[in-house]
Amino acid sequence: MPNNPLINAWNAGRSTLNGWLAIPNASTAEVMAHVGWDSLTIDLQHGLADYQTALTMLTAISTTRTVPMARVPWLEEGIIMRMLDAGCYGIICPMINTRDDAVRFVRACNYAPVGTRSFGPIRAGLYAGPDYYKSANDEVLSIGMIESRQALDNLDAILDIDELKAIYIGPADLSLALGCTPKFDQDEKPVVEAIEHVIKSAKAKGKRVGIHNLTVAYARKMIALGADFVTVASDMRLLTAGANAVVTEFQNSAPGNETSDTY
Amino acid sequence: MPNNPLINAWNAGRSTLNGWLAIPNASTAEVMAHVGWDSLTIDLQHGLADYQTALTMLTAISTTRTVPMARVPWLEEGIIMRMLDAGCYGIICPMINTRDDAVRFVRACNYAPVGTRSFGPIRAGLYAGPDYYKSANDEVLSIGMIESRQALDNLDAILDIDELKAIYIGPADLSLALGCTPKFDQDEKPVVEAIEHVIKSAKAKGKRVGIHNLTVAYARKMIALGADFVTVASDMRLLTAGANAVVTEFQNSAPGNETSDTY
Amino acid sequence: MPNNPLINAWNAGRSTLNGWLAIPNASTAEVMAHVGWDSLTIDLQHGLADYQTALTMLTAISTTRTVPMARVPWLEEGIIMRMLDAGCYGIICPMINTRDDAVRFVRACNYAPVGTRSFGPIRAGLYAGPDYYKSANDEVLSIGMIESRQALDNLDAILDIDELKAIYIGPADLSLALGCTPKFDQDEKPVVEAIEHVIKSAKAKGKRVGIHNLTVAYARKMIALGADFVTVASDMRLLTAGANAVVTEFQNSAPGNETSDTY
Amino acid sequence: MPNNPLINAWNAGRSTLNGWLAIPNASTAEVMAHVGWDSLTIDLQHGLADYQTALTMLTAISTTRTVPMARVPWLEEGIIMRMLDAGCYGIICPMINTRDDAVRFVRACNYAPVGTRSFGPIRAGLYAGPDYYKSANDEVLSIGMIESRQALDNLDAILDIDELKAIYIGPADLSLALGCTPKFDQDEKPVVEAIEHVIKSAKAKGKRVGIHNLTVAYARKMIALGADFVTVASDMRLLTAGANAVVTEFQNSAPGNETSDTY
Amino acid sequence: MPNNPLINAWNAGRSTLNGWLAIPNASTAEVMAHVGWDSLTIDLQHGLADYQTALTMLTAISTTRTVPMARVPWLEEGIIMRMLDAGCYGIICPMINTRDDAVRFVRACNYAPVGTRSFGPIRAGLYAGPDYYKSANDEVLSIGMIESRQALDNLDAILDIDELKAIYIGPADLSLALGCTPKFDQDEKPVVEAIEHVIKSAKAKGKRVGIHNLTVAYARKMIALGADFVTVASDMRLLTAGANAVVTEFQNSAPGNETSDTY
Amino acid sequence: MPNNPLINAWNAGRSTLNGWLAIPNASTAEVMAHVGWDSLTIDLQHGLADYQTALTMLTAISTTRTVPMARVPWLEEGIIMRMLDAGCYGIICPMINTRDDAVRFVRACNYAPVGTRSFGPIRAGLYAGPDYYKSANDEVLSIGMIESRQALDNLDAILDIDELKAIYIGPADLSLALGCTPKFDQDEKPVVEAIEHVIKSAKAKGKRVGIHNLTVAYARKMIALGADFVTVASDMRLLTAGANAVVTEFQNSAPGNETSDTY
Repeated sequence: MPNNPLINAWNAGRSTLNGWLAIPNASTAEVMAHVGWDSLTIDLQHGLADYQTALTMLTAISTTRTVPMARVPWLEEGIIMRMLDAGCYGIICPMINTRDDAVRFVRACNYAPVGTRSFGPIRAGLYAGPDYYKSANDEVLSIGMIESRQALDNLDAILDIDELKAIYIGPADLSLALGCTPKFDQDEKPVVEAIEHVIKSAKAKGKRVGIHNLTVAYARKMIALGADFVTVASDMRLLTAGANAVVTEFQNSAPGNETSDTY
Repeated sequence: MPNNPLINAWNAGRSTLNGWLAIPNASTAEVMAHVGWDSLTIDLQHGLADYQTALTMLTAISTTRTVPMARVPWLEEGIIMRMLDAGCYGIICPMINTRDDAVRFVRACNYAPVGTRSFGPIRAGLYAGPDYYKSANDEVLSIGMIESRQALDNLDAILDIDELKAIYIGPADLSLALGCTPKFDQDEKPVVEAIEHVIKSAKAKGKRVGIHNLTVAYARKMIALGADFVTVASDMRLLTAGANAVVTEFQNSAPGNETSDTY
Repeated sequence: MPNNPLINAWNAGRSTLNGWLAIPNASTAEVMAHVGWDSLTIDLQHGLADYQTALTMLTAISTTRTVPMARVPWLEEGIIMRMLDAGCYGIICPMINTRDDAVRFVRACNYAPVGTRSFGPIRAGLYAGPDYYKSANDEVLSIGMIESRQALDNLDAILDIDELKAIYIGPADLSLALGCTPKFDQDEKPVVEAIEHVIKSAKAKGKRVGIHNLTVAYARKMIALGADFVTVASDMRLLTAGANAVVTEFQNSAPGNETSDTY
Repeated sequence: MPNNPLINAWNAGRSTLNGWLAIPNASTAEVMAHVGWDSLTIDLQHGLADYQTALTMLTAISTTRTVPMARVPWLEEGIIMRMLDAGCYGIICPMINTRDDAVRFVRACNYAPVGTRSFGPIRAGLYAGPDYYKSANDEVLSIGMIESRQALDNLDAILDIDELKAIYIGPADLSLALGCTPKFDQDEKPVVEAIEHVIKSAKAKGKRVGIHNLTVAYARKMIALGADFVTVASDMRLLTAGANAVVTEFQNSAPGNETSDTY
Repeated sequence: MPNNPLINAWNAGRSTLNGWLAIPNASTAEVMAHVGWDSLTIDLQHGLADYQTALTMLTAISTTRTVPMARVPWLEEGIIMRMLDAGCYGIICPMINTRDDAVRFVRACNYAPVGTRSFGPIRAGLYAGPDYYKSANDEVLSIGMIESRQALDNLDAILDIDELKAIYIGPADLSLALGCTPKFDQDEKPVVEAIEHVIKSAKAKGKRVGIHNLTVAYARKMIALGADFVTVASDMRLLTAGANAVVTEFQNSAPGNETSDTY
Repeated sequence: MPNNPLINAWNAGRSTLNGWLAIPNASTAEVMAHVGWDSLTIDLQHGLADYQTALTMLTAISTTRTVPMARVPWLEEGIIMRMLDAGCYGIICPMINTRDDAVRFVRACNYAPVGTRSFGPIRAGLYAGPDYYKSANDEVLSIGMIESRQALDNLDAILDIDELKAIYIGPADLSLALGCTPKFDQDEKPVVEAIEHVIKSAKAKGKRVGIHNLTVAYARKMIALGADFVTVASDMRLLTAGANAVVTEFQNSAPGNETSDTY
């Protein structure tokens, strides 16, 4: 099995850029994969793809060197293991709120004797080769989301789970949990402080850290704080923003406002 | 059957903005429909959707007041009539190069005695009501593409077909036909002159005119020349442009270049 | 290859009942197949299924002894041959308006030396066995639709094509062609007379005859006139009628109208 | 976010009619939505749609004002939250048998601090707007099914959960639980008494009540007993019943029985 | 409901051959069903089909007398019950490691009062008839996988659950659990001994036993040891092996090696 | 645009091995692509995939260096151009029977001024880059099938079309045309002679030649005769053969025949 390029990058001191796939479609995934993100995460939680569609999206990502990952809908073993078998190099799991959640999650991501992941890497094996099972426990990223008050309370206990390779900060849920506005690129103080606290604590325990952002500018700030990987926007947000810009420009340039009609 | 809102707008002297759907997916179509385009065209020719997917996209567009249209792959009766039955208010047909092409096309778009369109508006009837057949010939837009040297040669003969309601200029194919670079928002002289000639000729014969553009600025120039409806970009182009911008910004802002890391 | 059960029934003097599949779904096709229709026709013209979905519907029909057929979108060789390869025992082709149409149609339905149907019965062979090609020309029903004024004018020339096994009357298009209301179960005189004329002419030339109906009552009248197979309604029409009946009954039984509330 | 029209109706003293979608298809959902049900529930438990198909069905329902809901396969957080993000205004959850079941269910349906629903209303936000999160806890109906002996035993404890907005009676499972025939429109005494008991208890605790029925007549009786919303039949049942009626009528009208063959 | 043909065969002393479906496609399932396996198991765990696709595959299997089964992704009630409603005659559940796992699994497979399976056999009823619920608990095979060290430790407790009808040995996971190479057709001593132990123990408690194999030769050995049903390879493995053989033969027969070029 | 690797190989004197995809599925296409065929052809004529599925298969092939091609259902411009836009490096077109067929086919495969292919390489451009249009006419293989008596009669006229880059012999249809058994790896004299004649004539006119075979042995004979590319079997045939072998071996090894039951 090839080394996980994300781990390589982080070990080399480079933070990585993650793209986010909410559109349930292989063609958009293929286009996104050609753009040059370090990794692409198929979002099976708040995104619109189910396993069957995600499978075709993973194939699309494999037309490039972009690292495929997935966010699963919930801490449910079935879908975690299926996405790993389908070739994901990392799983982001929502709402890791307690030590028990973290233990259950890493067990699902690791083969025996570490965990209870069942063997059968039908598509992963196509890419990782016959020795996949030997290094999968090392190369597959189990990434637990820290995004609730309960998770903040149990942060150290969660971070103490050795097999948990990284955490991922969900700013919107964390905001709600702290009585703030659910959004990315937060500037409300309680959330900003919580994010800083989580990043600092995770780095202190040797965990990798990721966070979801809306803009590159904010993502760069998170990297400066210690984030190893940052997500910016999503395919659906980029599409919507682009379309809104065109429609707005068209409406604002209606005849009365035009200053030029030659080329 | 309700009047075609595009015809209403044009009759009122307002040019309309058309969005372009190349992504074969109902969820992106639904998002696009909510953005406010006057019409959305599902591209079955150079886009990626087939009939079955286009059907779900038409449903998605019907969650809004946006007018649904389709570009068919070729002058083939089967798909033209299926898209009309599925609820399109307009069909853009590629490569209408001769008078015979135009006749065959408008026959496919019109019920007897005008044409040979077969009756069975299974989804169109859901929206247009039981009297659909009475006004469909008037409200459905048959839009022939002018995009080859042969079409330029036969322009008047094509424009003389009464039932052809509009033409649509394909700048990329027209460019190739004239030995120029296949692209939108053309500034190469032979293409610019051909576009002006086509628009002028069509307006002189009372035809509506549409054209594909990359930017609003160019689209506005086309409107100034007489275009009744203009397409700007496409869902796939907007997504690609947005994603490229993020990746580029991220790469350009790598540590060495950062000037700020606080918020 | 087993004999076509429809031909067997007709030879035995029994008229058959055909169901109509407009819903693009294998599960509804499977339910319909279990109901007991002699044959089921997947409508690729005014119905909502494309080839890929129709393929799963044919599999669903094959869970029973019901005979699978398809109506193709238009006289286009590609889809005619694909539906035959997929296992249809009959093809209904719209708008056979001239002798040439009929010739082109039957050529697409027959192997050399009779026609130009290409060999490769990938799914048909699964059911019909290795000798499929020997009897396919005999057992496959090529059924041309008579539904335009031009077809009425050319009726004898069309019926003279030996390989055309049957005709199918499309009452809605025929009505439009004759200036009447496009509907099934016609009682407007020009259409009624045309239907009688077509049935009589076809039977005189030894052709089998089918017709689309809305009700069993009308279908029985057509049988009395000579029809060999009759379609009644469609899956979508039955669903809509059933749902409308429930909603209407519920609304009409609103509190003020209730006379009983015990059981 | 707009108010939930079902809650509005109930507050105004009007009982609502719910349609049931077991067919996994957007086109049938679109047709059903146009018929006029107050709400439509996509059945992900005993119906045939999975999340990906259900997503297209929700889009289809959004072409009308019908309120979309879903029954999830089981008390599993992943699918509950996904269906809410996809735009459902209510979730019917099977087998709420204990207080703990009810608590876990309502936590999945509510944002922090009430519950643990994760934020990301990708499609719901398209319709409910940016303030969705502020009123979602109020407008989204969490509806627990009462359908086992254990649920009857724990009825009061379940009904005491404030955030549980409604219960839904599953007559077939309830019948099995009580040793009776699993069916709708029950007339066997133990089930009838249990239904009356459940409705009475729920209304006494201020909960809304729904129940699944086969006929309007039985549904009206349930409304008289206090039911706020009633389901009648399902798309698949209506299709099957309609098809059976045609085939039976055809078979019963075979030549020997015909009394008339003229029109 | 018809008797389960697998149970009939085993009662008659005949071991059965099970085929394995990892390809997510109805057409390959249909072809496999025509080949003559006693049963076919759709693998929703390490295979590539999700529920929606599996549904079409079950329809495909029903074109023959082959018995349909499924392996579910994990001990999750939702998908277990859905696959039963969809017509499976047996469910193979991974990682039944404890008595509690076994109890929870059999409860999901059985109607009240034995278990908590919810009533609604939408597709199963189509084949099994209206009395399905009366014999489903008897005819449906709940098959727990024994494939971990924990399961070996708890083997007797698991086998003591009466409603558990059979066990299925997963050699690959069992190998990993015992520190051996994860593969089928094991010859490493710890695994061979464990398999023998499990088969012997299960037979002693009156349970049916199945096991996954790569070759018929090994499967026959397992039958000799007491296995009642054996899986050999999978559709994907057969395809891969066949394709590899062609490519290898072609490369090995390149010009320099050819000894004959006539026919 | 990269050079077409097939053309490179042929120019270097190497014959290439083509795999055949009849299964409509991206995962099987991905597995096939990893096996090492020089090219893979998606069969849209006698295979089971439609455009929408073929699109996902092309993405799957692009995970490797295998060259993607397609056989279209018929000489229909719509699908030919769509498959090229989707990234095919070659199109095999059935039944090129006359000079006019060949002209129409090559026009569909070439941009102006050579042909009428419309510009919009939505997925091809992703791989071939912005200058795709400059070399596409050179690199895209237009491959006409010679498989009818009419084609044999018109062979020279067809081969005289310069833009036709290759021909492909369809042995089954050719057999039917010559009154022989429709099959691959023919040994019936009329077909063998016709194949030799076609290959010889094509090579004499400088055309590349391909042919469909069942076995490598026969394919090697064709190469010896001059074939540049050979197809062997298909994914569906390999799966069927593999499955049949297992079932047969199992049945033949039933207890009575077993000679060994130990390991």
